[in-house]
Amino acid sequence: MAVTVVGSVAFDALETPFGRRDRILGGAATHFALGASFFTDVRVVGVVGDDFGAEEFAVFQSRGINVDDVERIAGEKSFFWAGRYDNDMQVAHTLDTQLNVFAGFDPVLSSRARGSRVTFLANIQPDLQRRVREQCTGAVVTGLDSMNYWIESARDSLLETIGCVDVVSLNDTEVRMLTGQPNLARAARQICALGPRVLVVKQGSYGACMFTQSGFFFVPGYPLETVVDPTGAGDSFAGGFFGYLDAHLDERELTDEMLRRAAVYGSVIASFAIEAFGSERLQRLTLPEIEGRFSEFKQMTHFEAQPLLVRATED
Amino acid sequence: MAVTVVGSVAFDALETPFGRRDRILGGAATHFALGASFFTDVRVVGVVGDDFGAEEFAVFQSRGINVDDVERIAGEKSFFWAGRYDNDMQVAHTLDTQLNVFAGFDPVLSSRARGSRVTFLANIQPDLQRRVREQCTGAVVTGLDSMNYWIESARDSLLETIGCVDVVSLNDTEVRMLTGQPNLARAARQICALGPRVLVVKQGSYGACMFTQSGFFFVPGYPLETVVDPTGAGDSFAGGFFGYLDAHLDERELTDEMLRRAAVYGSVIASFAIEAFGSERLQRLTLPEIEGRFSEFKQMTHFEAQPLLVRATED
Repeated sequence: MAVTVVGSVAFDALETPFGRRDRILGGAATHFALGASFFTDVRVVGVVGDDFGAEEFAVFQSRGINVDDVERIAGEKSFFWAGRYDNDMQVAHTLDTQLNVFAGFDPVLSSRARGSRVTFLANIQPDLQRRVREQCTGAVVTGLDSMNYWIESARDSLLETIGCVDVVSLNDTEVRMLTGQPNLARAARQICALGPRVLVVKQGSYGACMFTQSGFFFVPGYPLETVVDPTGAGDSFAGGFFGYLDAHLDERELTDEMLRRAAVYGSVIASFAIEAFGSERLQRLTLPEIEGRFSEFKQMTHFEAQPLLVRATED
Repeated sequence: MAVTVVGSVAFDALETPFGRRDRILGGAATHFALGASFFTDVRVVGVVGDDFGAEEFAVFQSRGINVDDVERIAGEKSFFWAGRYDNDMQVAHTLDTQLNVFAGFDPVLSSRARGSRVTFLANIQPDLQRRVREQCTGAVVTGLDSMNYWIESARDSLLETIGCVDVVSLNDTEVRMLTGQPNLARAARQICALGPRVLVVKQGSYGACMFTQSGFFFVPGYPLETVVDPTGAGDSFAGGFFGYLDAHLDERELTDEMLRRAAVYGSVIASFAIEAFGSERLQRLTLPEIEGRFSEFKQMTHFEAQPLLVRATED
């Protein structure tokens, strides 16, 4: 079993109220891979420049993540993003984007990547996501993420690509922007009508909700007292979610029970990711910590029904 | 057993994308009382003008709500609020506020109201809330709501009043504004340090979370496809919450289990309230509907832990 992620592997420069990092390992595929690596084998499909060195590859290797499908282009630079978060930490302000090698990213999957049962198409141009999707001949579950930029500039292509995957992962602003529908439940129905079996709606510090064919599920955000850097929270969530699915699919159909646990593990992984800059926290995360926080999520949402004592006048 | 609510009984004019009402029964105490009336006896302490007639009083009477402590002042008009909601339905735009009789509201509680075990101080000037609180000699559980206006204009008084109650109910913007702390968990700790045993943070369509001495609980918003009018959602929530507590206190201490169920019933009642204008939906709500939706909330948040199948490398 292995989950394949296709997306950016990058350097980030980050400023938050808690400090800054001028050059740190980043990229959607990086956050996803680290998150998923606690549950299953992970293969990254991406591209970097020759500024991406042994130190960066060692982060993947330390978590047993396969980087055979990360192409390294001599004489070029890796994708670079610079962003700032203000006090509310909910909105990333982009300061600089340098696509570099990522501008020409158009991967031909290796046979191992094509054979992956679970594949996640991180936030890249939707035509490209669809070309990758068409190569995933062994996939049982495919998912995608996207962003406001593609909703505005390539909406039709994104809608077509959404029709080709099983799981769509967007934030609530993106869901509303994509559908033009302010009501989230209606917007979700529109997106699921395009084909996906599952829509995960990320809601920042509030948590995430999931619309499936059989219902609605909500997992809150973990009430952290210190959020150091929200970069990669959504991709870390996806890593936990799809990593869990890959480990537990066992040739069976996706069940609601399994999807719910996957969403909780996604929220668990994301809650750790934002405790430190970039992927620093996931690099030192342990399984006992994951299991401990999963139990806390259970506790945070649990209540028992009990017969209601009502007024005599209601009987 | 009876819960007492002290607050506005009013007329509202409402505009939402789903229609308008030029003059409809409103006011925080009204929404609270209707919500609580499904669980326990309710007593309203308020003031109206002589424009408030038999038709309006009949709404309370039809739900068995005691209005003996609603003063009716001849020759004066009731509190009036006009507001508009746009597509996102999260923000109320105030078009008009006429305090009328409410400007002089400074209630002397009847002996029955003083003896209530549970009392809710709806959104009124915090000095006034404190004067009422001091009269609640029989109260086991007291709660309050407030708003941005008092946070800005009477912050010190509000902080003092918060120190005199058991349960504080605010929305997340108000919690951040009151504490100057953007992180919700830290802000909650600050507010609980003033004295309250429970902080309920209303989060609009996301739901609500609750900070207690023993932990954190989250109840999502119900994923309604049509929200007709959010007016009174928070007060309806409080009605369900405190109404449930009053019915189940049974001389015992507030337990976390009881508070959690109360929060879920609060969210259930609020989810119905917003399905129609003003209190129209609560006026025709039934207990089987409440119980049905409570079960849906259980389903929406439920997941089972299962042993994690992890990578061999993690063992």
